[in-house]
Amino acid sequence: MSKETTGIEKLQQLISQGPFNKWLNFTVLKAGEDGVEVRAAWREEWVVHPERRYTHGGILAAIIDVAADFAIAATLGRPVPTIDIRVDYHKAAMPGDLTAKARVVRMGNQFSTAEASLYDQDGALIASGRGTYFTATPK
Amino acid sequence: MSKETTGIEKLQQLISQGPFNKWLNFTVLKAGEDGVEVRAAWREEWVVHPERRYTHGGILAAIIDVAADFAIAATLGRPVPTIDIRVDYHKAAMPGDLTAKARVVRMGNQFSTAEASLYDQDGALIASGRGTYFTATPK
Amino acid sequence: MSKETTGIEKLQQLISQGPFNKWLNFTVLKAGEDGVEVRAAWREEWVVHPERRYTHGGILAAIIDVAADFAIAATLGRPVPTIDIRVDYHKAAMPGDLTAKARVVRMGNQFSTAEASLYDQDGALIASGRGTYFTATPK
Amino acid sequence: MSKETTGIEKLQQLISQGPFNKWLNFTVLKAGEDGVEVRAAWREEWVVHPERRYTHGGILAAIIDVAADFAIAATLGRPVPTIDIRVDYHKAAMPGDLTAKARVVRMGNQFSTAEASLYDQDGALIASGRGTYFTATPK
Repeated sequence: MSKETTGIEKLQQLISQGPFNKWLNFTVLKAGEDGVEVRAAWREEWVVHPERRYTHGGILAAIIDVAADFAIAATLGRPVPTIDIRVDYHKAAMPGDLTAKARVVRMGNQFSTAEASLYDQDGALIASGRGTYFTATPK
Repeated sequence: MSKETTGIEKLQQLISQGPFNKWLNFTVLKAGEDGVEVRAAWREEWVVHPERRYTHGGILAAIIDVAADFAIAATLGRPVPTIDIRVDYHKAAMPGDLTAKARVVRMGNQFSTAEASLYDQDGALIASGRGTYFTATPK
Repeated sequence: MSKETTGIEKLQQLISQGPFNKWLNFTVLKAGEDGVEVRAAWREEWVVHPERRYTHGGILAAIIDVAADFAIAATLGRPVPTIDIRVDYHKAAMPGDLTAKARVVRMGNQFSTAEASLYDQDGALIASGRGTYFTATPK
Repeated sequence: MSKETTGIEKLQQLISQGPFNKWLNFTVLKAGEDGVEVRAAWREEWVVHPERRYTHGGILAAIIDVAADFAIAATLGRPVPTIDIRVDYHKAAMPGDLTAKARVVRMGNQFSTAEASLYDQDGALIASGRGTYFTATPK
């Protein structure tokens, strides 16, 4: 991985561009050679079960995908298309903000692998996963 | 798989319970031994790229997860916890409703596998994936 | 997917080239637009548990990978590099030949998805999975 | 995860029991709370391409599965059934022994997640992956 990384301000600007990431209300907390850390702000629409009140796995998958993608963006300076993603669910996520720590596993010319772990407000591991990203230079 | 399946009305009621699935605005179109078909209604918050306007992969993953889960629910009569999920992205999903066709790959006593394919309004395959679900009888 | 497909004889020749596939002793049973069917011949080294005698999941993963790859080869005329693979295990595979049915899920210019299901001699589903393959034209 | 872990000698004995793991010729190098490290000894049958001589991905998947499983075995004292596995391929593995470092991501009562990274003799990352394992207490 290149030693040059994109700064927090630039990543914050990139992550806040579209409606979906705005809806997830991301804050970029850290960005560097070791990866990135981002926080998504809880919202009522995340809840899947009306009584038990935990967050739907699709939201967790989306946050993991965005975080892993931005671990790559910290190096390439731009988010990249996701080819595929895999998420393991470890613990029910109760209402509250979620923080993802992500890093590049292997940066390649054509496609790359990045992974992320997702934590709740108590620091408990909620879900983790990894994706394959399309990192060929745009023509 | 049991030949008894849960009807469309019951599945529609189950899928509409929580805030997240309400937000995705699911309609159960088909339900039977061969699986289920559900439609999610497009909304502006799905858009990830402000100019290109395609839907975020996290939304596609969520719909695939819900559809595969309800293929199991059609047999068990209840949705079940997702253990892990994998999604492959095939084509950018432009604004418009999305329809998922899902089926059980293998029903087990402790955990089961189900898969779903996601189509846009033109019938093009947008994404597909499969998950492992926890199907042990609740105590 | 192109309607032209590579014939059984050509695929049999391609699958028998290297030591690993020779060791798995593949026979190409079918090849066409709908996918391929290949059989791997059981061998004692597949056994993981000395008393219970079932086959190691790594062997099942390998057969699924080869079968999915050759579903692509049936169209492209050559096997391609695997980017990533996921395998779900459904049932213990007891000693005996295994047959995989594989098909292309989506053929792309840069990368493609293919899937395979693996059956024992009684026709029971043993494992299934899918991979992402690198299908860019070699330079 | 329990702080008690199974020692190297016991794990070596467990890993050497069946024909498949004997064929992969595993040596347990490390075992502790942080995970395990195992080495598989190269053999000619691993080669997939007769001229380029790299190892088939199925072998890499098998080693990753065994290593991740034994990260769990280091805590539970026994290897466990694999529910599903996902492997990302990072670099062609040329002839030579391969070393896997594995750790438990999350230990659960019913099912658990473990991951492994695979390195060649030069310490280059060849492949990595993770699996879901069935860790319920046998009846």
